This record gives sequence, structure tokens and C-alpha cells, in this order.
Amino acid sequence: MEPPNASVLEVFENQHPHRDYTIEIVCPEFTSVCPKTGQPDFGTLTIAYTPDVMCVELKSLKLYLQAFRNEGIFYEHVTNRILDELVALLSPRSMRVTAAFTPRGGISTTVTAVHEIAR
Amino acid sequence: MEPPNASVLEVFENQHPHRDYTIEIVCPEFTSVCPKTGQPDFGTLTIAYTPDVMCVELKSLKLYLQAFRNEGIFYEHVTNRILDELVALLSPRSMRVTAAFTPRGGISTTVTAVHEIAR
Amino acid sequence: MEPPNASVLEVFENQHPHRDYTIEIVCPEFTSVCPKTGQPDFGTLTIAYTPDVMCVELKSLKLYLQAFRNEGIFYEHVTNRILDELVALLSPRSMRVTAAFTPRGGISTTVTAVHEIAR
Amino acid sequence: MEPPNASVLEVFENQHPHRDYTIEIVCPEFTSVCPKTGQPDFGTLTIAYTPDVMCVELKSLKLYLQAFRNEGIFYEHVTNRILDELVALLSPRSMRVTAAFTPRGGISTTVTAVHEIAR
Amino acid sequence: MEPPNASVLEVFENQHPHRDYTIEIVCPEFTSVCPKTGQPDFGTLTIAYTPDVMCVELKSLKLYLQAFRNEGIFYEHVTNRILDELVALLSPRSMRVTAAFTPRGGISTTVTAVHEIAR
Amino acid sequence: MEPPNASVLEVFENQHPHRDYTIEIVCPEFTSVCPKTGQPDFGTLTIAYTPDVMCVELKSLKLYLQAFRNEGIFYEHVTNRILDELVALLSPRSMRVTAAFTPRGGISTTVTAVHEIAR
Amino acid sequence: MEPPNASVLEVFENQHPHRDYTIEIVCPEFTSVCPKTGQPDFGTLTIAYTPDVMCVELKSLKLYLQAFRNEGIFYEHVTNRILDELVALLSPRSMRVTAAFTPRGGISTTVTAVHEIAR
Amino acid sequence: MEPPNASVLEVFENQHPHRDYTIEIVCPEFTSVCPKTGQPDFGTLTIAYTPDVMCVELKSLKLYLQAFRNEGIFYEHVTNRILDELVALLSPRSMRVTAAFTPRGGISTTVTAVHEIAR
Amino acid sequence: MEPPNASVLEVFENQHPHRDYTIEIVCPEFTSVCPKTGQPDFGTLTIAYTPDVMCVELKSLKLYLQAFRNEGIFYEHVTNRILDELVALLSPRSMRVTAAFTPRGGISTTVTAVHEIAR
Amino acid sequence: MEPPNASVLEVFENQHPHRDYTIEIVCPEFTSVCPKTGQPDFGTLTIAYTPDVMCVELKSLKLYLQAFRNEGIFYEHVTNRILDELVALLSPRSMRVTAAFTPRGGISTTVTAVHEIAR
Repeated sequence: MEPPNASVLEVFENQHPHRDYTIEIVCPEFTSVCPKTGQPDFGTLTIAYTPDVMCVELKSLKLYLQAFRNEGIFYEHVTNRILDELVALLSPRSMRVTAAFTPRGGISTTVTAVHEIAR
Repeated sequence: MEPPNASVLEVFENQHPHRDYTIEIVCPEFTSVCPKTGQPDFGTLTIAYTPDVMCVELKSLKLYLQAFRNEGIFYEHVTNRILDELVALLSPRSMRVTAAFTPRGGISTTVTAVHEIAR
Repeated sequence: MEPPNASVLEVFENQHPHRDYTIEIVCPEFTSVCPKTGQPDFGTLTIAYTPDVMCVELKSLKLYLQAFRNEGIFYEHVTNRILDELVALLSPRSMRVTAAFTPRGGISTTVTAVHEIAR
Repeated sequence: MEPPNASVLEVFENQHPHRDYTIEIVCPEFTSVCPKTGQPDFGTLTIAYTPDVMCVELKSLKLYLQAFRNEGIFYEHVTNRILDELVALLSPRSMRVTAAFTPRGGISTTVTAVHEIAR
Repeated sequence: MEPPNASVLEVFENQHPHRDYTIEIVCPEFTSVCPKTGQPDFGTLTIAYTPDVMCVELKSLKLYLQAFRNEGIFYEHVTNRILDELVALLSPRSMRVTAAFTPRGGISTTVTAVHEIAR
Repeated sequence: MEPPNASVLEVFENQHPHRDYTIEIVCPEFTSVCPKTGQPDFGTLTIAYTPDVMCVELKSLKLYLQAFRNEGIFYEHVTNRILDELVALLSPRSMRVTAAFTPRGGISTTVTAVHEIAR
Repeated sequence: MEPPNASVLEVFENQHPHRDYTIEIVCPEFTSVCPKTGQPDFGTLTIAYTPDVMCVELKSLKLYLQAFRNEGIFYEHVTNRILDELVALLSPRSMRVTAAFTPRGGISTTVTAVHEIAR
Repeated sequence: MEPPNASVLEVFENQHPHRDYTIEIVCPEFTSVCPKTGQPDFGTLTIAYTPDVMCVELKSLKLYLQAFRNEGIFYEHVTNRILDELVALLSPRSMRVTAAFTPRGGISTTVTAVHEIAR
Repeated sequence: MEPPNASVLEVFENQHPHRDYTIEIVCPEFTSVCPKTGQPDFGTLTIAYTPDVMCVELKSLKLYLQAFRNEGIFYEHVTNRILDELVALLSPRSMRVTAAFTPRGGISTTVTAVHEIAR
Repeated sequence: MEPPNASVLEVFENQHPHRDYTIEIVCPEFTSVCPKTGQPDFGTLTIAYTPDVMCVELKSLKLYLQAFRNEGIFYEHVTNRILDELVALLSPRSMRVTAAFTPRGGISTTVTAVHEIAR
């Protein structure tokens, strides 16, 4: 499997740019690998954004997220990386990425990062 | 079955225009068709509004929503279209339409659009 | 059974008028009749208010609400009527009435009306 | 859309016929049409069976169930019809079909039919 | 409103008498009146049966159950009465009626009665 | 308050003795006192029985149960005592009493006692 | 049992007065008596406060709340009385008392009172 | 802290030996230590039994279970050991011990052991 | 990553062979790959067994299950394969494997296979 | 076991300091000892923070929290102590610590403390 690559993401034109509206996408089947232990991590990824000119196409987003399956990456980094790559692609009016990972050693972790455009 | 047509919608006069109040209508049985794959989509549609002079009659609303049953339409578009057509009909003080679709490929999507009148 | 009549409502003096506090009353057993179809409607009625000089006595409120049992009345109207009659009785500092009706034809409706005194 | 037709169903050979095991398939997105009122019905269809020589292929099952979308058929009949057609196809050791429909007029209905082979 | 009368019930012929199958009907909007206090009672009525030659038509069942709205009748009696009247109508292979009433004075009551034909 | 006394219990004649049916009564507001510590205990009491000739009247049952409010009595004993006193009163075909007490010191206890008549 | 008396309450010194923090105490086993009917009332009492110089000791608070067991007192009054007595004892930076009582006659009531110091 | 020792357990005489009844004790705060990793384990321990001549006193049971806090012991062994020690103490008519441990490495484990006397 | 191989599984001796007891292991983080589409599948795997002479060591079981991560395998086959390999390893008195997969195309599937030794 | 000591905590550099984002860590397996009674306390600890230059390493945090296992410490103090020690370690942009303890004597307590840097 190829490593995750934002170039697989496809966009389509926002047909309703005159209005601020939100698109929330929930993926409860996100999995990556802990770079320290080599053990798989599992979590629910939630992406919510207000589109400007472009929206992300859902099937390409699914393939992009699936490519993290064998990627060694820390919780904090994967959340910020996905936010960075989607912001670079879409230039959304705002975007929030939340990754809620299942417990390891009795401790569960959720990372939330937000992009707001300066007004 | 006829394609969805806002002309089936009926209204009745708001008897309490002196007060801002909200009417929230939840339809967990919304279904349309994906224009790309031809597969049916299923979701819960929630319409909440503060009426001005007119309210939408519920039985006609049900028939209007049922007519999307065999309509090929994207998530983002159906949400904005229903908001646009109800705003054109009712000129409400405010209205919010949320469409929460069931998972496809392990990913579920919710679109929320809001109309506020300028004050 | 007599039609609903606000004159059955009894009040008692608020013993703590020096402080704004809220009383929330939930009645999940509200029922009235649809004036169009003659079919019974069922819902949960929630009344929350900040008393000023008077509080409503709960047993008389129960009898007042029960009297809607055979009354033909629309969702929007019953919510506003109960708010109007309780505001006229109590002159509360604020009051909110919410009526959440069970599904009819796959669609459920909740009406919320708020009274705030001008300050 | 074509009416539902069992000939779209595909099978594959059971690789573990030496053991009784069960396959439970849940489709919460089943919809058909009431033949009396023309209104859509919605329900959750659950099919559980112990295969003998053949298993039903899941994608063809999905297409078979989707074809009821515009079919006028009563609750009791659709449950028994699906059971009959799958039994004719698979000759399973046992099979149960349950169809749990959403409320209409405040009443919800669940039909359960079971096929057991005589021993 | 007329008192409850089993003569409003309609039947249709069971199309699948060769097979034992069950029909479960849940009515969470059952209401009657306590004959002692005159206060309304509320409950969820569940009827489950295996038809023999006849099935009960759902809309007529709804009207039959609605007619208990202003009937003064005890918990134990209403459950057995509905079972008796449906058994007399349908001669089912088996039938169970459960009535789960909401709390009164901090106590809630559920009555369950079963009819089995001797074999 | 008087100590609990089965003589406050009232009965009424079972109108359906030709049929075995069950009456389940749930009281989530049972409270008594620990005889060792003097601290209040709280629990949910569930009484389920198949009546023979007599049923227990619900309001008198409520008063009987309320009288345990200031009674010092152990979990195991109160469950068996209520079963004994109701069996002596009603001679039911069968009866089960369950008392589920809330946690004390991180431990919660449920006692279940059953009376079956020899056949 | 003695009537409720704030003099049983004990305090201890707040070790972290440099910081605003909140202590929330939930007692789902609160019971008192309706002064009108003599029937017991049951509810969940929630006390949340930001301490200033003093905190309330939990065991003494438990004993104070238990003493309402046989006290005849209305919902609105008990909520405000507990708030008044705890504010007098602790002079907290802020305090909120919520009493959520179980249903009586199909109606449940929650009273919430807040104390904020003027700044 | 002393290691767990069944000698701290106290018993009292069963006052109702003429009847089979069950006592279920749930302790959601059980903790021990993994003998392999030295890491703490957490679980819910459920003990259900039908007493014969003796019942276990609850406070002594709590102290017995707390003593496992720093004990290195495997899941399978602790469940069987507690069952063995309680059976030796009480000679119950039957007893079941269930230990449901929280997830480690994404995997959670529940062990259930039952003692039945030969009849 | 190596393909799944039962040779990584380790066992330890059952210390309580005189008693039938059950060990239930739940892994909500099972993932494999659909051999037809190449898309990842996700499910909850539950293994319950009564050991005879040997128990499976949990950490080695985790590694064994993780190795299915990139394995192309059908639902029905993976369930039976895991059962076969664990039965070959442990010769348990009984074992049940359940694999509950998340929805694909609106349909979710659960496969359950049981091994019982002949007596 | 050693007493809790912040020196076991390890940090790593925040790779995304250009953005405010939050890391929430939930530990439902926190346990300490009541200094008054010597009895164990159990709770869920939640730590949420916005990192500045440093993040706390999760495995070292787990070991730090585990060391409270045999520490005698009050609810209010442990919450503030953990906040103080993590703030000293990380100098986060903001941090909130919540400790929700299980019921003792029918009363459960939650303490929440927040650190905000002056701006």
C-alpha cells in the first residue's frame, strides 16, 4: 500500500458559495501505526468545514484516509497533518479536525485542531 | 413518481407573529439517490425555523420530501436546495436545514445550512 | 370532560423573590386531538420559568394540562396558548414552553416559545 | 427501476459445510411502498441463516433488497416473500427473516418468519 | 367518542398459513382512565401473535385501541379484555398482550397475558 | 410513622382466574435503614406474580412499602419478608421479589427470592 | 431523627484559594416529605460551588442532607433553603443547587437556584 | 497493605434456609496487578450465590476484595481463587464469580466460573 | 507485516481443569481486507471458550489477530479459520467465535461459529 | 511502589506551535486512598490542554498517575496537585484537570480546576 499522499484528493466546485454552511464527515474506521511500538492505533476522525470555492470529494477522501493504515505517525501529528493538507487543498473558510483514539494502557486521547481564516 | 416540486407545499398563517418561536421538524426517513452510483442514500432531515407571516403545512411538507425518493442529487446540494425552496416559500425570520446521511464506505456525512435575515 | 380553562390554575406566593431561580416542569403525558383528522396527538410538554411574585401550584397545573385531552388544537397553537395563559397568570421573569410531539407519517415536530420581560 | 427479482441473487459455495454456523445480515435501510396508501414504508430487515451448501453473495443481496424501493407490498407479505425466495435459492439448514417497520399512526409493527428443515 | 367496541376491528386473510410466523405490534400511545380516581393512565401496549387463518388489519386496530381513551378500566382488566377480544376475532395459534403503564405514586405496573391453543 | 404492617394491604378479586397472567410492579423509590450503621439504604423493588384468586391493590401496596422508610432491616431479610407477607396475603400461583440496592463502599447488592407453589 | 440543622455541617480550609475551581457533589438519594400529602418525595440533589476560604466536609454534608428524610418541605423551598444554608456557611465565590424530583402524577419537577457574589 | 486473606471474611446465619434465593454482589472497583508487567489491572467483579446455612458479611467482603490491590495475579486465577475461597467459607448451594477486566492493548477479557453442588 | 500465522500463538497450562469455566475475549479493533474490492473491513471479534488443559496467552493472541491487518479474506472464512486454528491449538471443551463487521453499502454482517466436543 | 513524583514525566517538543490545538487525555482507571479512612478511592481523570512548546509523553503520564495508587490524598487536593505539576512541567497555553470520583455513602464528587495564562 502506498503511503498517504494528498495528491489522491479530488475536489468539486462549491455550488452554494453565497452562504456559509458546514459539512461534517465522520470516519470511525481510522487506523494508523504507533511509530514507537509498531502497534496499530484505532480512532474516530471527524472533519468539519465551511467550504469556500471548493469541496472535497468523499470517495477520494476515503482513499486518502485509508492510506494511513500502515503509516507510523503520532496522534498529535496525524491530526495536524490532515488539517494542514486539507486546508492547503480547499482553502476553506474554516475547518476543524478531531481524532479520538481508543484506550492504550487504560488511557484514551483525543486531539482537536482548528483552522480559522483571519478576517 | 413526480420529481420534487416546491409547488406542492402549502402554507398557513402564523397565528402568533408577535413572538419569535421555533418549529423543529425531524424526518428520519429521508431518502434520495446518489447521482454518481445510482445507489440509494438515507438520512435524517431536520428543519428548524422561526416563522414570520407563514408556516409550512406538515402533510404537504411530507409529500414534498417524499418526492426526493428517486431523485439523483448530492448531499451538499439537496440540503441547500431544500433550504432555498422553503425560504422562498415562507420568508422565515430564520431557518436551519440539517441532513445527516448514513455511512457509505465507513464514512458518514452531515450537511448544515442556515438562513438568517439581515437586521 | 370540560375544555381546558386557565381558571383552574392555582398559584402560591414565591418565598424567594430576592433571587432568580428556575422551575422546570416536564409532562411526558400530554395529549390533545388533531383538529383536522380527529386523531389523538401525544407529546412531552416542558415548562421552565423564573418566578417573580407567584408560582403555579403543580396539582392544578396537572388538571389544566389534562383538560386538553379531548381538545382539537394544532401543535403551534397549543404551545403558544399555554405560554400565554401561564404568563397572564404568573407574570414570570421569564418562561419557556416546549412541546415535542411523537411522529406522524414519519415526521415529528417540536415547538418552542419563549417569553422574556423587557428590561 | 426493475421490480424485485430473485434472479439477481448470486451464491457462492460454503467452505465450511462440516460445521453449523450462522450468518446474520442487518439492513436498516429497507424501504417499500404501502399498497393501500401509496406511502413509503421504512424498516430494518434482519436475515439470519445457517448455510448448507450455498451462501448468498452480499452485493447481489443488497441489489435484490433495493429493488423493493418502489414495490407496493404489505408488511406480512414482504417478510414471507423474502424468506421464501432465499430458502428456494439457498436451501439453508435454517433461516429467520425479521422486518421491523417504523411507526405509522403511533403504531410500529415487526414481522418474524422462520424456516427450519425437517430432521 | 364511542366506547371501545371490538366490532370496529377488521381482518384480512393470512396468505402464509403453512408457516408459523409472528406479528408484533407496539403502541406506545395507549391511554385510558383510572376508574377509581378519574385520572388518565398512559402506557405502551404490545400485541404479539402467530396468525392462523386471519390477521388483524392495522388501521382498524389503531381505532379500536384509541377508543379506550375515555374508558374507565383497571390495568389488569384492560390487558385481559384486549386479549380476549382479539382471540375471539382471530383464533390465533398464540397471542401475548403486554401493557406497561407509566409510574403513579412512584410505582409502575406491567401486566402480561398469554393465550396458547391446546395442541 | 408506623412500622411496616401487612395489615394495611388490601386485595381485590382476580377477574381472570381462568388464565395464568403476570403482574409486575416496579418501585424505584424503596428506602429502609441499615440496622448496623443507622444509615439509609435505597433500592429498586420489583414484585412479579401470577395471581390466583386475589390481586393486591396498588395504593395499599405503596403505603405498605413506604412504611419501611424508618425500619432497620438487612437486605436479605427485607426481600424475604416482603415475599412472605405477600404470599400469605395472596396465595399467588407464583411470585418473585427482587431488591436491587444502590452502592455502599463501592459494592451494590441485589437479592432475589421466588415462591413457587408445588404442583 | 432530628430535623435538618446546618449546625451539623463541618468545613475545612481551602488549600488552593489562589485559583477558581469547582466542586460538584451529586446525591441521587435525596428524600423528603410532601407537606401537603405526607407522601415521600425522591430526587437527585446536585451542589456545585467555587470555594473561597472554606470547603464543606463531605460526611457532614451527607448527614445534613439525610436529615431531610422526614421533613415536610416543598420542592422550591428545599432547594433555596439548602443554597441559603450552604452560602451562609461557606461564603463561596459561587454556588448552584439543583433538585430534580421524580414524577408525581406523570409530572416531574426540577428546581435550580444560583448564588453569585457581586463583583 | 496485607496480601488478600480469606480469614478476614465474616459470615452470618441465613435466616431463610427453607427457600432458594440469590444474592448478587457487584464490585466495579476491583483492582489487582499483572504479575508479568507489574501494571495495574481494573475490572468489575460480580459474585452471585444461593446461600445454604451461611451468608457472607458485606463489609468484610469489601475488605477481602480490596486486599488484591497490590497482588500480582492473572485474570483466570483470581476468578477461580475467589470462587474457591468463598465456596470453602460458605458451602453455598451454588455460586458464580465473573470478573470483567478493562481493555489492554485493545482487548478486554471476562472470566466466569461457577460452583454447583452435586444433587 | 507477516501474514497471520497460528505459530505465533502461545499457551499456558490451565490451573483449574477440575472446573468448567469460560474465558471471553473481545477485540473491537479487528481489521482485515476484502479480497474482492481491496477495501479494509472492520469488526469486533469475540472469542469465548471453556479451556481443557491449555489457555491461550493474551499478548500472543493480540499479535496473531493484528496480522490479519493486510490479509485479503472473506467474513465467513476468517471466522471459521480463527476458530479452526484456536481449536487445533487448545483443544478446548468448547469455543465460540463471533465476528461482527461494520456496515458496507448499508448492510452489516455478523458470523458466529461454534465448536463443541462430542461427549 | 514509589509515591507519585513529577520527575518521572517526560516531554516532547510540540511540532505545531503555530496553532492552538487541544489534547484531551482520559484515564478512567485513576485510584488513590482516602487519607481519613484508608479506603481506596476510584475516579476518572480528564486532562485537557493546549500545548505551547512542550507536550507530555503519554506512557510517562500513565506511570505518574499510577503512582497515586497507594497515596493518601483528598479529592480537592489531588486535582489541584496534578494541575500544578503538569503546568510547572509544560507551561501550557491552558490546561483543565477534572477528577470524577465514584459514589461514597450515596454521594459522588467531581472536582475541576483550570489554568489559564494571563494574556
